[in-house]
Amino acid sequence: MAKTATPAENAQLKDIISHAKEYGFVYPSSEIYDGLQAVYDYGAYGVELKNNLKRLWWETMTRVQDNIVGIDASIFMHPTTWKASGHVDSFNDPMIDNKDSKKRYRADVLVEEHAAVFERAGDIEKANALTGALARLLEAEDLDGVRDLITNEGIKCPISGTSNWTDVRQFNLMFSTQVGSVAEDSTTIYLRPETAQGIFVNFLNVQKTARMKIPFGIAQIGKAFRNEIVARQFIFRMREFEQMEMQFFVRPGTELEWYENWADMRMKWHLALGIPAEKLRKHNHEKLAHYANAAMDIEFNFPFGFKEVEGIHSRTDFDLKSHQEFSRKKQQYFDPEVNKNYIPYVVETSIGADRLFLLTLCNAYTEETTEEKSRTYLKLHPAIAPVKAAILPITKKDGLPEKGKEILELLKYDFNIIYEDASSIGKRYARQDLIGTPFCIAVDHQTLEDNTVTIRHRDTTEQERVPISELHGRIAEATSFRRVFEKL
Amino acid sequence: MAKTATPAENAQLKDIISHAKEYGFVYPSSEIYDGLQAVYDYGAYGVELKNNLKRLWWETMTRVQDNIVGIDASIFMHPTTWKASGHVDSFNDPMIDNKDSKKRYRADVLVEEHAAVFERAGDIEKANALTGALARLLEAEDLDGVRDLITNEGIKCPISGTSNWTDVRQFNLMFSTQVGSVAEDSTTIYLRPETAQGIFVNFLNVQKTARMKIPFGIAQIGKAFRNEIVARQFIFRMREFEQMEMQFFVRPGTELEWYENWADMRMKWHLALGIPAEKLRKHNHEKLAHYANAAMDIEFNFPFGFKEVEGIHSRTDFDLKSHQEFSRKKQQYFDPEVNKNYIPYVVETSIGADRLFLLTLCNAYTEETTEEKSRTYLKLHPAIAPVKAAILPITKKDGLPEKGKEILELLKYDFNIIYEDASSIGKRYARQDLIGTPFCIAVDHQTLEDNTVTIRHRDTTEQERVPISELHGRIAEATSFRRVFEKL
Repeated sequence: MAKTATPAENAQLKDIISHAKEYGFVYPSSEIYDGLQAVYDYGAYGVELKNNLKRLWWETMTRVQDNIVGIDASIFMHPTTWKASGHVDSFNDPMIDNKDSKKRYRADVLVEEHAAVFERAGDIEKANALTGALARLLEAEDLDGVRDLITNEGIKCPISGTSNWTDVRQFNLMFSTQVGSVAEDSTTIYLRPETAQGIFVNFLNVQKTARMKIPFGIAQIGKAFRNEIVARQFIFRMREFEQMEMQFFVRPGTELEWYENWADMRMKWHLALGIPAEKLRKHNHEKLAHYANAAMDIEFNFPFGFKEVEGIHSRTDFDLKSHQEFSRKKQQYFDPEVNKNYIPYVVETSIGADRLFLLTLCNAYTEETTEEKSRTYLKLHPAIAPVKAAILPITKKDGLPEKGKEILELLKYDFNIIYEDASSIGKRYARQDLIGTPFCIAVDHQTLEDNTVTIRHRDTTEQERVPISELHGRIAEATSFRRVFEKL
Repeated sequence: MAKTATPAENAQLKDIISHAKEYGFVYPSSEIYDGLQAVYDYGAYGVELKNNLKRLWWETMTRVQDNIVGIDASIFMHPTTWKASGHVDSFNDPMIDNKDSKKRYRADVLVEEHAAVFERAGDIEKANALTGALARLLEAEDLDGVRDLITNEGIKCPISGTSNWTDVRQFNLMFSTQVGSVAEDSTTIYLRPETAQGIFVNFLNVQKTARMKIPFGIAQIGKAFRNEIVARQFIFRMREFEQMEMQFFVRPGTELEWYENWADMRMKWHLALGIPAEKLRKHNHEKLAHYANAAMDIEFNFPFGFKEVEGIHSRTDFDLKSHQEFSRKKQQYFDPEVNKNYIPYVVETSIGADRLFLLTLCNAYTEETTEEKSRTYLKLHPAIAPVKAAILPITKKDGLPEKGKEILELLKYDFNIIYEDASSIGKRYARQDLIGTPFCIAVDHQTLEDNTVTIRHRDTTEQERVPISELHGRIAEATSFRRVFEKL
């Protein structure tokens, strides 16, 4: 059952959302036009953080592993792709309208929220009975049954306060558009609701042109789109989002071993980035999708509870087989080791870049209160921090800005660096804390004499004196992706 | 007038297209379903090359320059954005249908192709009269006049062979879709036809949260979509494409100076990547768009002639002013140096990532024939080559593969490296040439004795003996983005 967030948890999410907006990480899309529901833009520091996360994932897949290559398939695909994948026929949510308010709801969410009321009141038995009944009805695709459950329970529309409901109908979550200008040639195509199919339809192209031998993987980062009815919790569930997926092609019969391997490898990756073990858990799917023979989520303890961040799915040969049927083109691999042709089985790892971003922000957001003072900072792993170092002359005169800019020239071509010489040094430290910059480099009068600077470390606020000549090496060492790779 | 490609030029483009497909750079999208017109996917080497180009552009903008930051705005935007920008009302192509074949054409292209027939026959005067008449009619938005021109000239549909034409009508190039599930709440939104507006609507958000002072820039890389009628020339003009745009906000009155600066800086960038000066030229727009007070293209000599790769536009305050009107929110900047509020002027640099990719491929594609042999290779700048080095044990036994894999471990976390131990060394060299790998590292029996390897250089095919301990430094030096930055 969906865990309902407590007020304290929601307050923490609110703090993070306003921090993200105020310090240039995430803004509501088209904000000057009052935004577009469930769509967000990444600001100056947000885009650097997101790009670092994407690049780290990409290099983990395509460099640390010797048998994975990448692709970048387009968002537009031939519409038959989505017939073959099952999305045209069954990528639906059950919807119900209240006839008085004219508002539409996800029928299953209405029942779950109703059950949550009983749960909070301590009536676990009733809550479980409701969610159990719902699961059975959805399993049987009994939409009238779901409608009866809503009516019999007297569930009311929060706007109109009535139980005057329509039938439950399926609503497809794919966005569609028309391509081509000639009326008789124009075709309905879809914005891809997942990136995986771009990999499946290119399976043989990649296998042949990059000369891959099974087992091997294909990795991809790209946008996907879903017309979500209930889109909420900030960037956790958006209508436009970015996926990072890897499909690993294996010999049939070996897929469950690879499934366990990949689940462990992906969990290690999150831990290597500094996420505490107690904030992560594996959650096996109770009900498997039609294409899977094993599936689990890696969940993170968000302010609104443990929620899926990454899925590990053993997808069998469902997708390739289905594309073989619909395209009438063989999707087989000849395995010289067993001297046989077969359709490979697939184990997939699928993570939302935006969700990973939210996880990273939630985990890094730290409010620290000591007797003397309180401060807020983002405890980001230096490898992914949007800005690696800030160069801060303690005063704007005496040649310190010029010296600071010399240091900037030494560093800026290899690292994202901020130079700032206005306002007090304390205020400038505080600001770098708020965007998660691991190193502040103070340039003072001693610098002019002996070419040393002070490095102030974000997490400890401790300072040390370091020769300018060591700065490049120090920053390179601390921010290298190798710091993450060596923990895998 | 559009230059028509000669058969030899088209043959070269065909070679490049089939090279791109055969060696894992670019495939037609959804190829197993016979493709989707004007949409392409990037394969294993294509995605690495494209990512390198994108990252190089990004770092050129946001690191080499001290006053540019990035953002990543969503593809979905509030629909009023496109009213304000003028796209809803005037992002059109003039279309005409042949009543017999039911085929639709761009009316202007029909006339241009008709003019080209006279040009090829040597009747330059007639050709110029036709294109001049067309330009005047389009300028005056006289669509009936365009239709009359087509009819009077007896221009025929190539399918039906008749001149039985409909009226000329405007066709909007934006893709639209419906967002939201509630019938009465559902909204028509557009897939952005350009990325620039994502920067304009976020102008104040970025200026404030990243504390930027004019002059400053905002850079962005992202997908855009246009329902092109005549989409052709491979990835030159696609329906789904990726833009790399930078909007530079300046004090009114200084924009033309910045416009010249940016045109020069961008030209230098292409030269720094190794494009010969004679293949590039600046081309001033004869007719300015309604928002511009100066505009030029940087053109590259593709196999099909000099065509636009990058646009430099002085956009005045058109966009910000229009968003101020439509949103009723001030889009002003307070400039402390002149103690005044104003709407900044904007100079934009706009380059298609896919076009840059095609330029790169066309420029790198080299067929070399000497008396002894011929070879094909991609002469890519090492900083953007998809694979930096290939490790090739000369035989699969005697411990050479193990030694090769030791070297792989030394390099693979920092560079994209291929390891390959099958087939003859000559064939493996040839294959690395075809994907543009600058260094082949041969591991032989001497390697086991003295820890040296042979480096074979792609462009010269010369070989030299190098200690393994020097490999990392050598590759880092040659492939560093600094090699490009230092030429700017």
